[in-house]
Amino acid sequence: MGLLGGSVSLAILRCLPGVRVVGYSHRSATRKKAKRLGTAHEIVDDITKSVTGADLVIVATPICVFQEIFNAIKDSLPDGCIVTDVGSTKVLPHRWAAEILPKAVHYVGSHPIAGSEQRGIEFASDNLFDRAHCILTRTAKTDVGALRALNKFWSRLGCSVKVMGAGEHDRILANVSHTPHVVAAALINASRTEELKLAGKGFADTSRIASGPPNIWADVLLTNAGNVSRSIDRVIRELSKLQGAIDKGKTKRIEQLLQRAREKRSAMLKYKANGREPIQ
Amino acid sequence: MGLLGGSVSLAILRCLPGVRVVGYSHRSATRKKAKRLGTAHEIVDDITKSVTGADLVIVATPICVFQEIFNAIKDSLPDGCIVTDVGSTKVLPHRWAAEILPKAVHYVGSHPIAGSEQRGIEFASDNLFDRAHCILTRTAKTDVGALRALNKFWSRLGCSVKVMGAGEHDRILANVSHTPHVVAAALINASRTEELKLAGKGFADTSRIASGPPNIWADVLLTNAGNVSRSIDRVIRELSKLQGAIDKGKTKRIEQLLQRAREKRSAMLKYKANGREPIQ
Repeated sequence: MGLLGGSVSLAILRCLPGVRVVGYSHRSATRKKAKRLGTAHEIVDDITKSVTGADLVIVATPICVFQEIFNAIKDSLPDGCIVTDVGSTKVLPHRWAAEILPKAVHYVGSHPIAGSEQRGIEFASDNLFDRAHCILTRTAKTDVGALRALNKFWSRLGCSVKVMGAGEHDRILANVSHTPHVVAAALINASRTEELKLAGKGFADTSRIASGPPNIWADVLLTNAGNVSRSIDRVIRELSKLQGAIDKGKTKRIEQLLQRAREKRSAMLKYKANGREPIQ
Repeated sequence: MGLLGGSVSLAILRCLPGVRVVGYSHRSATRKKAKRLGTAHEIVDDITKSVTGADLVIVATPICVFQEIFNAIKDSLPDGCIVTDVGSTKVLPHRWAAEILPKAVHYVGSHPIAGSEQRGIEFASDNLFDRAHCILTRTAKTDVGALRALNKFWSRLGCSVKVMGAGEHDRILANVSHTPHVVAAALINASRTEELKLAGKGFADTSRIASGPPNIWADVLLTNAGNVSRSIDRVIRELSKLQGAIDKGKTKRIEQLLQRAREKRSAMLKYKANGREPIQ
């Protein structure tokens, strides 16, 4: 029940009035806040109780504790129950679900492209998923009925849903989400604190995502390490191309590389403006 | 009379009602727009006429044409006139001014840290400089009276003014402005257009400055090539540090590097929030 778990819960209360939501957190302070804020119908302090009788279980923790959670809930999950998560990488969660969860339970990965550099239940909002993309991930073994049900669920919360393979998801998201985080952090770390005082709004925007929680992001980077590392290689290659052109004073080449970026970004914004807007 | 020149002019009309502004552009379309929008008191089509009798001349063109402009106006500048510019690099403009402008004319560099990824007089605004930082640059030979007058001028337009050496300016701005532009472009160029469709708001912010005009930016990068190249080296080193930690699965090291970036950005935002806000 943090930013994402709390927001899913609040969005269900708003968009799916017939659905009963049971929230769980291992932290008593979070459970107290959730009760005070009315984030769910019921808040329990026992993870097995939180999933008893559930049709849908949504794991909204850092990815590194998924295995532990799957193990803690596996014996309490009803047959036919759908288990999903809201993590930013998907190959490993699919693997862990196949290894740990009972055969009668259906795991599908969810990645709502929504969030904030803030964290915690106090920043949860019932409209976080309005017009957001939500990617559902599957493997060859994924249950089609569960996929359809989950597609309907996220659509009802306001998402535009896209289904893809877990491997493809992790490869693309390394480029457009995980590596940009690494780049924003590297950019800041390359300047001294005194120098950053002269930074303008451009730099503040470029570096915004570097204010995200380090443990959550370490988790994302480590569970998608191969793709992220290859993606960092690509960014370094592009940086070196521009650096080479700058070193050699090749005006036309610099303009060409900057123009390419400008056009690709413009196409991206056009796609977003057409109502199929992915929001993070 | 583009985004910056037009905005300086409009800000003068608003903040310094006793001052007469004469605008010049070599493009007749821009001159027509400037007349229609009332961007200056007078718009002329002859660059020498635009500076005749001027107390202050503000060059707001790409940096690569400064030499040409200094040559075009040098014989029409009144003795004691102050010449400045609004370019993003300063070492070369100071050198060119010393080489080309008459001794009786005082050159001081200005760099208002304000702008937009938009361009053109139609985006000019009379409040672009409200609460913006403006850096004035000097060398050992800079006239102190001219520096003081220009300090007062930008302050009256709403800027918080800071004076520094031209060399120091170019070194710091490479880190916090010029190289971030290169990084944003490299980040976009490292992904395919199809992949960018899955990008979220985080990526859109991180890459925003890559939508700036390629020729203006090529100009900035080339007139600060040495500093930018060294700054790209530093970013690549920081990227490699994170990549190494990701490749080796060193969770604590990744968290430490991300935490460092997060804290530095937080200090930067705190500095900005204290009313000494540099805006680009």
